[in-house]
Amino acid sequence: MPDTHPTQIADSIGPERRAALATRFQKARSRTAELVAPLSPEDLMVQTAPYGTPAKWHLAHTSWLFEVAVLIPFSPGYRPCDPTFLDLFAARGNHPHPPPRALSRPTVAEIMRHRDHINAAVLHLIDQAEDGRWEAVAAAVTMAVAHERRHQERMLLHIKHALWCNPLRPAFEPPPDIPPAGTRQDGWVEKAGGLIEIGRPTPVPGFDHEGPRHRVWLDPYRLAARPVSCGEFLDFIKADGYSRRELWLSDGWDTARAEGWSAPLYWERTGSGGAGGWRIFTLYGMRPLDPDEPVCHVSWYEADAYARWAGARLPYEAEWEAVAADCDSMGNLLGTGHRHPCAGACHGAGPWQMCGDVWEWTRDAFTPYPGYRQPDGPDEAVHGRFAINRMVLRGGSCLTPFDHAGPWTRHHLRPESRLSVTGIRLAEDG
Amino acid sequence: MPDTHPTQIADSIGPERRAALATRFQKARSRTAELVAPLSPEDLMVQTAPYGTPAKWHLAHTSWLFEVAVLIPFSPGYRPCDPTFLDLFAARGNHPHPPPRALSRPTVAEIMRHRDHINAAVLHLIDQAEDGRWEAVAAAVTMAVAHERRHQERMLLHIKHALWCNPLRPAFEPPPDIPPAGTRQDGWVEKAGGLIEIGRPTPVPGFDHEGPRHRVWLDPYRLAARPVSCGEFLDFIKADGYSRRELWLSDGWDTARAEGWSAPLYWERTGSGGAGGWRIFTLYGMRPLDPDEPVCHVSWYEADAYARWAGARLPYEAEWEAVAADCDSMGNLLGTGHRHPCAGACHGAGPWQMCGDVWEWTRDAFTPYPGYRQPDGPDEAVHGRFAINRMVLRGGSCLTPFDHAGPWTRHHLRPESRLSVTGIRLAEDG
Amino acid sequence: MPDTHPTQIADSIGPERRAALATRFQKARSRTAELVAPLSPEDLMVQTAPYGTPAKWHLAHTSWLFEVAVLIPFSPGYRPCDPTFLDLFAARGNHPHPPPRALSRPTVAEIMRHRDHINAAVLHLIDQAEDGRWEAVAAAVTMAVAHERRHQERMLLHIKHALWCNPLRPAFEPPPDIPPAGTRQDGWVEKAGGLIEIGRPTPVPGFDHEGPRHRVWLDPYRLAARPVSCGEFLDFIKADGYSRRELWLSDGWDTARAEGWSAPLYWERTGSGGAGGWRIFTLYGMRPLDPDEPVCHVSWYEADAYARWAGARLPYEAEWEAVAADCDSMGNLLGTGHRHPCAGACHGAGPWQMCGDVWEWTRDAFTPYPGYRQPDGPDEAVHGRFAINRMVLRGGSCLTPFDHAGPWTRHHLRPESRLSVTGIRLAEDG
Amino acid sequence: MPDTHPTQIADSIGPERRAALATRFQKARSRTAELVAPLSPEDLMVQTAPYGTPAKWHLAHTSWLFEVAVLIPFSPGYRPCDPTFLDLFAARGNHPHPPPRALSRPTVAEIMRHRDHINAAVLHLIDQAEDGRWEAVAAAVTMAVAHERRHQERMLLHIKHALWCNPLRPAFEPPPDIPPAGTRQDGWVEKAGGLIEIGRPTPVPGFDHEGPRHRVWLDPYRLAARPVSCGEFLDFIKADGYSRRELWLSDGWDTARAEGWSAPLYWERTGSGGAGGWRIFTLYGMRPLDPDEPVCHVSWYEADAYARWAGARLPYEAEWEAVAADCDSMGNLLGTGHRHPCAGACHGAGPWQMCGDVWEWTRDAFTPYPGYRQPDGPDEAVHGRFAINRMVLRGGSCLTPFDHAGPWTRHHLRPESRLSVTGIRLAEDG
Repeated sequence: MPDTHPTQIADSIGPERRAALATRFQKARSRTAELVAPLSPEDLMVQTAPYGTPAKWHLAHTSWLFEVAVLIPFSPGYRPCDPTFLDLFAARGNHPHPPPRALSRPTVAEIMRHRDHINAAVLHLIDQAEDGRWEAVAAAVTMAVAHERRHQERMLLHIKHALWCNPLRPAFEPPPDIPPAGTRQDGWVEKAGGLIEIGRPTPVPGFDHEGPRHRVWLDPYRLAARPVSCGEFLDFIKADGYSRRELWLSDGWDTARAEGWSAPLYWERTGSGGAGGWRIFTLYGMRPLDPDEPVCHVSWYEADAYARWAGARLPYEAEWEAVAADCDSMGNLLGTGHRHPCAGACHGAGPWQMCGDVWEWTRDAFTPYPGYRQPDGPDEAVHGRFAINRMVLRGGSCLTPFDHAGPWTRHHLRPESRLSVTGIRLAEDG
Repeated sequence: MPDTHPTQIADSIGPERRAALATRFQKARSRTAELVAPLSPEDLMVQTAPYGTPAKWHLAHTSWLFEVAVLIPFSPGYRPCDPTFLDLFAARGNHPHPPPRALSRPTVAEIMRHRDHINAAVLHLIDQAEDGRWEAVAAAVTMAVAHERRHQERMLLHIKHALWCNPLRPAFEPPPDIPPAGTRQDGWVEKAGGLIEIGRPTPVPGFDHEGPRHRVWLDPYRLAARPVSCGEFLDFIKADGYSRRELWLSDGWDTARAEGWSAPLYWERTGSGGAGGWRIFTLYGMRPLDPDEPVCHVSWYEADAYARWAGARLPYEAEWEAVAADCDSMGNLLGTGHRHPCAGACHGAGPWQMCGDVWEWTRDAFTPYPGYRQPDGPDEAVHGRFAINRMVLRGGSCLTPFDHAGPWTRHHLRPESRLSVTGIRLAEDG
Repeated sequence: MPDTHPTQIADSIGPERRAALATRFQKARSRTAELVAPLSPEDLMVQTAPYGTPAKWHLAHTSWLFEVAVLIPFSPGYRPCDPTFLDLFAARGNHPHPPPRALSRPTVAEIMRHRDHINAAVLHLIDQAEDGRWEAVAAAVTMAVAHERRHQERMLLHIKHALWCNPLRPAFEPPPDIPPAGTRQDGWVEKAGGLIEIGRPTPVPGFDHEGPRHRVWLDPYRLAARPVSCGEFLDFIKADGYSRRELWLSDGWDTARAEGWSAPLYWERTGSGGAGGWRIFTLYGMRPLDPDEPVCHVSWYEADAYARWAGARLPYEAEWEAVAADCDSMGNLLGTGHRHPCAGACHGAGPWQMCGDVWEWTRDAFTPYPGYRQPDGPDEAVHGRFAINRMVLRGGSCLTPFDHAGPWTRHHLRPESRLSVTGIRLAEDG
Repeated sequence: MPDTHPTQIADSIGPERRAALATRFQKARSRTAELVAPLSPEDLMVQTAPYGTPAKWHLAHTSWLFEVAVLIPFSPGYRPCDPTFLDLFAARGNHPHPPPRALSRPTVAEIMRHRDHINAAVLHLIDQAEDGRWEAVAAAVTMAVAHERRHQERMLLHIKHALWCNPLRPAFEPPPDIPPAGTRQDGWVEKAGGLIEIGRPTPVPGFDHEGPRHRVWLDPYRLAARPVSCGEFLDFIKADGYSRRELWLSDGWDTARAEGWSAPLYWERTGSGGAGGWRIFTLYGMRPLDPDEPVCHVSWYEADAYARWAGARLPYEAEWEAVAADCDSMGNLLGTGHRHPCAGACHGAGPWQMCGDVWEWTRDAFTPYPGYRQPDGPDEAVHGRFAINRMVLRGGSCLTPFDHAGPWTRHHLRPESRLSVTGIRLAEDG
């Protein structure tokens, strides 16, 4: 993990700590604003993904958490600039009606003014908080910063879906220059297993459901050196993988039929050119499928069916973590400037792209670790509460903020979800 | 009917005809633009009503009809400014996916530029069309102008619903000064009935389903001199009208239960002040219920239940038309500057507000008149095609363009619909 | 109308009246029992049609009305054999949960014992009712007999649907011997129209919504001499009638798409034999389509689309009634022993099959007649209450009890309904 | 495990093996027939549970598997008595339409004749199978016997639900005499954990997903000596457990709201008598709640919320298995004659009722064990295929056949399921 992780600053003391927290806060807030810079007010209003929200709502909701979890508890004289926002932009679970896409007011301009109001108030608090309350303030700010960064990824996922639903297929932004990929490497990482420890160590900051550290027994296994590529997934499609019932779990088969799946989300077959005429939609617009890129936007069901077809299986999260813990190469995360998985920086010995590029589905359902105790606090900061009917993902994607991806990071999604930049890494019994 | 009706200009000939058509065209287009002037780009994107569309879509769709029904057939050198718009803004029935609210692009600015492009091209065509094609051009422009004016009403209905869904309850515009209402008059208009003729006479312009003229037998009857008021409807509510099954048709009862109706749309009980604490949402924001105003935003089911409770019935459309044909007083229509039904200009002898203020539900299902033949032409100009499971309404509302409301005007809505400014006028057997 | 109509007996007085009512009661009750004789207890439990009920429920529900509307009000000492049945078998609208198909108890044997109990009690009442209460008793019995007879038709419709849903396609009963049909006659009945009277005359017994008698103006018209045949409807199918949007009302088009309609209900294409390989399911099992039979089990939407394709239209109900009033030929009704429309007894001058064989869709929505006043009484006896979103049918089908079909009979169904034996008779402007 | 387990007979050889298999086959088939003996043909047709099937279908479907998996592959001259049954009674996944409840034919009598036909043919095969094919025949018969026994439990669950939906609340059978319960014991079983082995040992017969045997690390823990009682669960209800959002996972909270849960399935509050007026529906009809009985018919969500409220947690399945492996006391299973969980045979040292009475929810999602390989074979014999969105249950219920409940038995249900006899056993970290 990088040494700039949010709350490690809590280890030092003095005015630099205030400055460091202020910087971290400002960077997160600026990044959010930068991400929406290419978008019109109309783009900020649109919402197409079933559980999505408009970008405008993300802009306001992230401010909301600073208001309720930082300013109202810790800044005695703080006055909300508009009290109605407290209700309008609360977490969805508490505020089911109306859906955020029904709110044309407050306008984007008002929401941006509200962000400025919050920014000034939080910076003032960081600067002025009494020493005796500093730890609590710093923890609250850090939590709300983490919340905002997590919403950066979601906001990009939602806007990507909306742009793709538009027949004009507008690009979010022009493509960056990408250096030529190295030669793609194949192969496996062999591990002997045994009784190991996994889970986030206590002093490392992160989410509650990533701990506690605990022992797990692993039999010998192999983990693929890189994620499954688009070209490999295309072979699955050509082999009628979507039509062979024996490859699918029954829930997956039913879902694939009901949804009419015949390829990953954002794939389109438009002709018979290179790569069989397949094109894919990215934040840079439509472009020809690159067989060397990691496949992404696949559901757990598709990942599982692919693995079965390939004669392998998905990894257990403990298997993944044991490999990641020894690995210091990171892939492509938010902030690197590439908002699509890269064909690979496969220079040197694997494993490659363990963190970044694509979230990797595992064989584990998302349940609390042994010894887990649910902390107090608002839902936004607590993950264990949502723990059922979801599968664990590991590694982070190209849209995941840098400090939200590490060996211990546990993400979880419904097995039918394809909205995130989700991919596949194979495993085998040793 | 007023002598300024769209196609009556077709009776004269010469350059004044071109000027008159150009004026009519420009007035309709400007009115649309004026109506959206108070709205932000976000407001133009929002859509909440189940079958509604964003105002932005109305802006573009009305241009679309000029493009496909006027410019492409009659302006040989015409070049669409963006060919994709032809598909994006086509009538919904032909273009089910994606819903208009999913289209953040083209932006409002692009849509307004497109309107300018169309305006210039249509004015050029009106000015330059060869004499031999003039009648066809004038008919097409007239039809598309009528289409645009009809969308003005819908657009206001949709934006009203969206603003009401917003907990901030923003007003569309500040309220106008309204002169004090005259004394409300009660009573009935008595008619002897007999064998009468109804339906739009051939030379009068209008929609196909308003004709042909045909004979109908009427028994003696009475028609109320004015629409049912909010105060009267409140008596129905106080008498448990919404809970007495015997007052309702079974489909209406089921709908009222499923939707949780206990008052007209846009009514809210917020306290115990005047008029029982009821407030209503209008385009001018929330305001206390005025017992003298016509009740509006009621479904056919509620109108029918009210009439049964009141010991009366809804009128047949022929009964209504026979009264309206002799009546020269108009009520409050779009253009008068009052965008809510008025408590009444009840000065002089009734009947009052036959045209304007509220659409009035009748006892008739919407079916073609005897002798009706469906014309050729695009769906936008043809109404008979939609003729089932709808009830007829007469008279026009405060949001209906002036020349879209007359004795022959037939509107039709599903009996459960409450989105339009719909009210009640009672009738009785003579 | 036949001179045996239920309440005409009310014109005479004396012990014969008791005997006549007793006979009428017994005949109706026996007919119901005869109709279920071919069915197993399992058949009596099955329910497949969306708004259908098991035959078992019809058996019990018809008894229920005698209990609540005849015995409890008029037989002071009457003791229900099982009080819970009063709730279990009440009209569905009052008793939504659980659906009748969820009730395996009471068993069929218990329900038949209950019928016997009711039969004995009603016969006792008919025999013993005091003179002063006789008219009220006779009216109540007559109404409940009419109710039972109406349920005979529904019960057969529901069991037909259930047998058809069964892949074994069992026949309800073996086919009867049918005499060879006469030569099919074509042509039209010409009528001059004018101001006519329609509606059930007051002294004639029948349902409330069939009156009052009132005047209607008709323009000259023609009514087809016979219903549309299967062969003619097959031409519509071959001409791609189900795929040509311009032939359909928009609601009909959407329904046909959503339901996947490409032929009438109960039609199946199983090969390429006679009549294009089409076979149809009847109460006698599957059999080859007979091109000369009236087409049946079509929705209003299909009837309307067929008429448009054929260059004609559906008749107004007043047009139909004016022809039927002069017509003394009846077709095939329940009791004749043919439980499927016949190819026609087209001997002699038309019109043919005005009553019987198929219910004929009209152009009219089902609304109350002018001057209609809703009577008091239980829902079972009152029809006006259900009057919306339904189209009027006339004439009765091969499953309609003999005395439930006459020139004034008004039936009504949702336009999408195909469960009844519904057909098409064309009309044209004169 | 009892020494009479199905395929342990495969260890010996000779004519006794044929006799033993024949006996096992006959006992399973007779038990099914005995279970439906109290039911009328109507009861055998009814189906109310959302994923349920009528008892009649269970009777036929169990025969079907003997036909397709035993007789057709192994009895060359075998002739199906009715080939259409092969399709009609196939597993639901392969045969979605029509639902079994729509099939009134074949009748119960035909299905029972079909069972006799199958019985004779299977017994003939067992008697005559060549030595070289014996092992395959015995394996197929054993699998199909296991399948039939599993359906016995489901059939009882479905009929229980149907009887409960009936307002008459009929009992399935009269209650048996139950010996007085011993004193209820509380307390915990303490375990040290460590690296243990779980999973069905290879030679023991059972389902594929119960193996392979593999190592698991367990921290020290405590397992409750007995299941949670109705009285304890009533305390949770009284403490507003169903209304306290913080006790529930979000999916559970949403489900409980949507379904209106305020008590376990089959609980009804009818007054204020003993146990707060609560009564519960059992296969013996309605009866007062017994606070000492294990609570049953709770979903995983309710079990999890209860555990959180009680300050404990659900056990991991490995924790459960480690205790059960050392435990030789069985509870109340199908065949003991008690078809409802008993207040307990809590004589002697715990743990009590580990097998039988109630299925016990665990904290584990149902996923394949490490090293699992999906076997070939029909879906009926393979469980791994259905492995997602389900939670693991252990122990068997009072409706589970005796040889389907042991330390290794893994059952799995959706977390919202309440149809099975599911209960709660608490655990705690050590």
